[in-house]
Amino acid sequence: MDEFSFIKSIKQHTYKQASLLKGIGDDAAVFRQMSQDIVTATDMMVEDVHFSRETTSAFQVGYRALAINLSDLAAMAAKPAFYLVSVVVPSHWPTRDIQEIFNGMKQIAVNHHMDLIGGDTVSGKELCVSVTVIGYTAQHKSRYRHSARPGDIVFATGTLGDSQAGLHMLMNPGMYQDYDYFVRRHRMPAPRVSFALNLDRVSRMALNDISDGIASEASEIAGASNVSLVLKVADLPASSSYDQFTAEQRRNWQLFGGEDFELIGTVPESEWPALLQASHETNTAVTDIGYVTEQQQSSVYLLENSQYKPVKKQGYTHLKQVKSSE
Amino acid sequence: MDEFSFIKSIKQHTYKQASLLKGIGDDAAVFRQMSQDIVTATDMMVEDVHFSRETTSAFQVGYRALAINLSDLAAMAAKPAFYLVSVVVPSHWPTRDIQEIFNGMKQIAVNHHMDLIGGDTVSGKELCVSVTVIGYTAQHKSRYRHSARPGDIVFATGTLGDSQAGLHMLMNPGMYQDYDYFVRRHRMPAPRVSFALNLDRVSRMALNDISDGIASEASEIAGASNVSLVLKVADLPASSSYDQFTAEQRRNWQLFGGEDFELIGTVPESEWPALLQASHETNTAVTDIGYVTEQQQSSVYLLENSQYKPVKKQGYTHLKQVKSSE
Repeated sequence: MDEFSFIKSIKQHTYKQASLLKGIGDDAAVFRQMSQDIVTATDMMVEDVHFSRETTSAFQVGYRALAINLSDLAAMAAKPAFYLVSVVVPSHWPTRDIQEIFNGMKQIAVNHHMDLIGGDTVSGKELCVSVTVIGYTAQHKSRYRHSARPGDIVFATGTLGDSQAGLHMLMNPGMYQDYDYFVRRHRMPAPRVSFALNLDRVSRMALNDISDGIASEASEIAGASNVSLVLKVADLPASSSYDQFTAEQRRNWQLFGGEDFELIGTVPESEWPALLQASHETNTAVTDIGYVTEQQQSSVYLLENSQYKPVKKQGYTHLKQVKSSE
Repeated sequence: MDEFSFIKSIKQHTYKQASLLKGIGDDAAVFRQMSQDIVTATDMMVEDVHFSRETTSAFQVGYRALAINLSDLAAMAAKPAFYLVSVVVPSHWPTRDIQEIFNGMKQIAVNHHMDLIGGDTVSGKELCVSVTVIGYTAQHKSRYRHSARPGDIVFATGTLGDSQAGLHMLMNPGMYQDYDYFVRRHRMPAPRVSFALNLDRVSRMALNDISDGIASEASEIAGASNVSLVLKVADLPASSSYDQFTAEQRRNWQLFGGEDFELIGTVPESEWPALLQASHETNTAVTDIGYVTEQQQSSVYLLENSQYKPVKKQGYTHLKQVKSSE
């Protein structure tokens, strides 16, 4: 299949977004948005760095590639609208698998009424999927990292550590509880879009998604807001069967594992009830995991056994270290 | 250098676009555009497919990666505003070379007052640069492929075949005229942005950029407009010392070589003077290279030695065939 036929095979026949004027089929896509702010982010996944074919199907690669980008939009409280996809296709990947990647993206895109409006396909040695997403927020309603203030409550959505637990199960076959649940959390994370779109009633909030581990994301909020964050380690939310792992595994995966694509944020104490209401309405668990203080020597402290331990900024940096395990 | 330090090193200290609300430093970038249409395109370059380190410096890789995306914006008559860049970084590429890639992009970005507003850096085996660009046009002023009508004049900007001639010189060392000129045309193409932004006075126009060879681009206009295009081969514009190559080379590179990043378009005969005025004001050569007819059996015909020859749609399709030569 040549590039022309391939593009034809993945091109949408109809588009869902009323703001779109021109989708795939020209030199560029065109849209118009006169009342809302426009939010855009991009993320890339590379075979044997971000996923392995042994543990991830082509469909899941696509699903995950778009999901991690949607998580960035959720972290801005932006409503997804469009995505563009470029793929490096190695000769040993059959075309039907590349189409499966696009099918995986389509599954999550359809849920959020997103349109595929552009892309590029090129040959190369290793599979690489580069996704750019575009979304909308009401004017001045994007949620930034720089909005945390001393006294705020720090919260996290969902449960933490599940993605790394799922990866561990995939890499170390054995008898596990809730295997399917954990593996799905790793392979097909569910970005917190609906929760993020129900936060209008909260007047001030810092927000970040948890791609690199909560300690690292907390540090980004702290740095952008010129404050420090205290995380109560015992209060980090975990799945019911998470206690099948050792204490060290549980702690490492929750604090530094990342890839849960949950949200971490801060709100004034007075707005906690409003946050809980969004939690209730979207069936999204929200847990109080700490608080914001004036800026200290370290940007993040772990409160464990009544002791405050400073955390160095860490987490995955793919540029520095290729993860051979995933 | 870890990813955090690297991002810091390439982050702009100030932004030029007034429509930008948030640049690099959060989960996504945010901008607002209430009066113009928004145009977006994405393109990817892979080492040893789109360029070779033997013939292209890191700076030129970056310059070219953004230039080919700007060419897509020019083909829509859109004013460049933003770019996002994701890079796969192999371990054998030193960080200073990656920074040089960004410096190359910056050089052409500064000329067009563009801001770098997002990106991703990941490890991998082969260097890959994925660029997404965002630009603006006045409402309903994007130039599409579907606007050609029978009777229109077909035009091309600049000269054709130069990029492939430059590549030939790089791959086949020898004595050549205007070596630097041709090699520069290959390594650092100049997208026709200023010309494209001066076309307001032309009321109807089909427009495409020449990335895949003019025969292929003509076919795209023909297909989108339900017409056929006739290209007068003898009239294709060439550089003054282009005749140092064989007749076969000249013809092949002009018709099928691509990567000149010139523009091909069609205008009603009555608007030819307006087109020439844009040509004059922006110092951009424009040549009448053919005409549009009612839809025929073939979408494109070459008029050579008074004969009409149908052309099959062809040109580079990177998905189908890796170019080992470039």
